[in-house]
Amino acid sequence: MKYELFYWPEIQGRGEFVRLALEDAGADYVDVAREPGGMQRMQALLAAHKGFAPPLLRAGRLVLAQTASILHHLGPQLQLAPTSEAPRMLLNQAQLTIADWVTEVHDVHHPIGSSLFYEDQLAEAKRRAALFRDERLPKFLRHFEAAPRATRRTSYVDLSLFQMMEGLRYAFPKAMKKQETRYRGLLALHDRIARRPRLRAYLESPRRIPFNQQGIFRHYPELDARQ
Amino acid sequence: MKYELFYWPEIQGRGEFVRLALEDAGADYVDVAREPGGMQRMQALLAAHKGFAPPLLRAGRLVLAQTASILHHLGPQLQLAPTSEAPRMLLNQAQLTIADWVTEVHDVHHPIGSSLFYEDQLAEAKRRAALFRDERLPKFLRHFEAAPRATRRTSYVDLSLFQMMEGLRYAFPKAMKKQETRYRGLLALHDRIARRPRLRAYLESPRRIPFNQQGIFRHYPELDARQ
Repeated sequence: MKYELFYWPEIQGRGEFVRLALEDAGADYVDVAREPGGMQRMQALLAAHKGFAPPLLRAGRLVLAQTASILHHLGPQLQLAPTSEAPRMLLNQAQLTIADWVTEVHDVHHPIGSSLFYEDQLAEAKRRAALFRDERLPKFLRHFEAAPRATRRTSYVDLSLFQMMEGLRYAFPKAMKKQETRYRGLLALHDRIARRPRLRAYLESPRRIPFNQQGIFRHYPELDARQ
Repeated sequence: MKYELFYWPEIQGRGEFVRLALEDAGADYVDVAREPGGMQRMQALLAAHKGFAPPLLRAGRLVLAQTASILHHLGPQLQLAPTSEAPRMLLNQAQLTIADWVTEVHDVHHPIGSSLFYEDQLAEAKRRAALFRDERLPKFLRHFEAAPRATRRTSYVDLSLFQMMEGLRYAFPKAMKKQETRYRGLLALHDRIARRPRLRAYLESPRRIPFNQQGIFRHYPELDARQ
C-alpha cells in the first residue's frame, strides 16, 4: 500500500515516530507537507476531516490521526507488530505510555500553554524541568528498562524508544549523561535499532530533519542538569 | 468473560472511563481495589507487570494498562465498538484525543508536577487555567462537536464524552455555563447517554464515586471563570 503522512515539514515532533516506522519498513510513502504545495494539502485534509492536529496518515480510504493510533494500525502492515490482538494491545499500551512521556517532555518547556512563547513561561519551565529530571525522567526510564517486551521481533515501540533516547540526549545532555548508564537494556536497544540498515540510511539522509528548537525535544541549557 | 478492573478506589479519575463502559454494557466485572484487600492486590499486580500506573484491566490471561488501550480492547466485546479495523481505529483516535483533553484538565491544577501540592503551584495553575478556559476548552469542544462520529451505534467514545461534559461542569461550572450552549450536538449526546437505563442505574448507585478534589476534575473556584 502507498501511504501519505501529513505532518509539519520542519520538525521531527510526533510525526517522527511514524516516519521511523515507515522508513524502517521501507514502506512506500510520501511525507506530503514536505512536497511543493503540501502544506495546503495538509490544511485541507485537516479541515475536511475536522482533525484536531497532525500527524495524519492516509492509508487507502482510511484517514487516521493520533500517533499511537496510526502506529497501531500500521504495525502489522509494516511487520512491526504481530497481527493477533493480545500482543498488539500490549504494544499499543506501551506506545501510549511513550505518548504520555512525549507530552511531559513538551510540557517541560511549555508548562503553561503552547500558545505562549517559551520566554514567557521560563520561570515555570525551570520549576517543571527540575521535577522532570529528578522524578519523571527516572520513572519513565525505569519503567521501560523493566517492562517486559511484548514481542520478540523488533516492533514500532522499539523504534519509538530509540527516538526517545535520541531526543532526550539532545534536550537534556547533562541529565541523560548522568542517568542513562543505569539503563543498560535501553542503551542496548537504542544501539541495536541504530544499526538497522534501512533506519541508519534514513538517519544519515536529508529526510531526517535535525533536532531543533521548534519540536518536542528542545535544548535549553537552563532546563538541563547543572553538570 | 469476567473482568477485573484495578483502579484507585476513591476517585473517578481515568478509571471512570472504563467503569462507564463496563457498567453500560452490564459486564461481569469486579472493581478490585474497592473490595477488602483489593489495594494490596492492585499494588501486587502493578509490581508483577512492571506497570506504570492504574487503570489496569485483567481479561482472561491479558493484563492491560492505559485507558484508551483498555477501551480499544473491550469495545467489541462490550458491543461498544464494531469489530472491523477501520471504525475501531477511528474510535481509538477519538479516545486518544479525549485522553489528551483529560491530561490538560489535570494539568490545569497541577501544571508543574503531580508530586507537588496544588497550593504550591497555585500561581502557575491560575495562569494555565485562563488559557485552558479561553483557548483549549473551546478547541476541544469545537472539535468533538464537529468531528464525524465513527459509528452509528453508541460507542465507548460517546460514554467518554458524556463523562467529559459531567467532569467539566463539576470543575468549571461558570466557564461551562457560558460555553456549552454553543455545542448542541455534545449536549444532546450527553443527555442521550444519561438516559441509557444501565448507565443511569449506575450513576444513581453507590458504585458511582462522587466527583471530589482528588481526581482529574477538581473544582477550584479560583480556576473557573469569574462569572
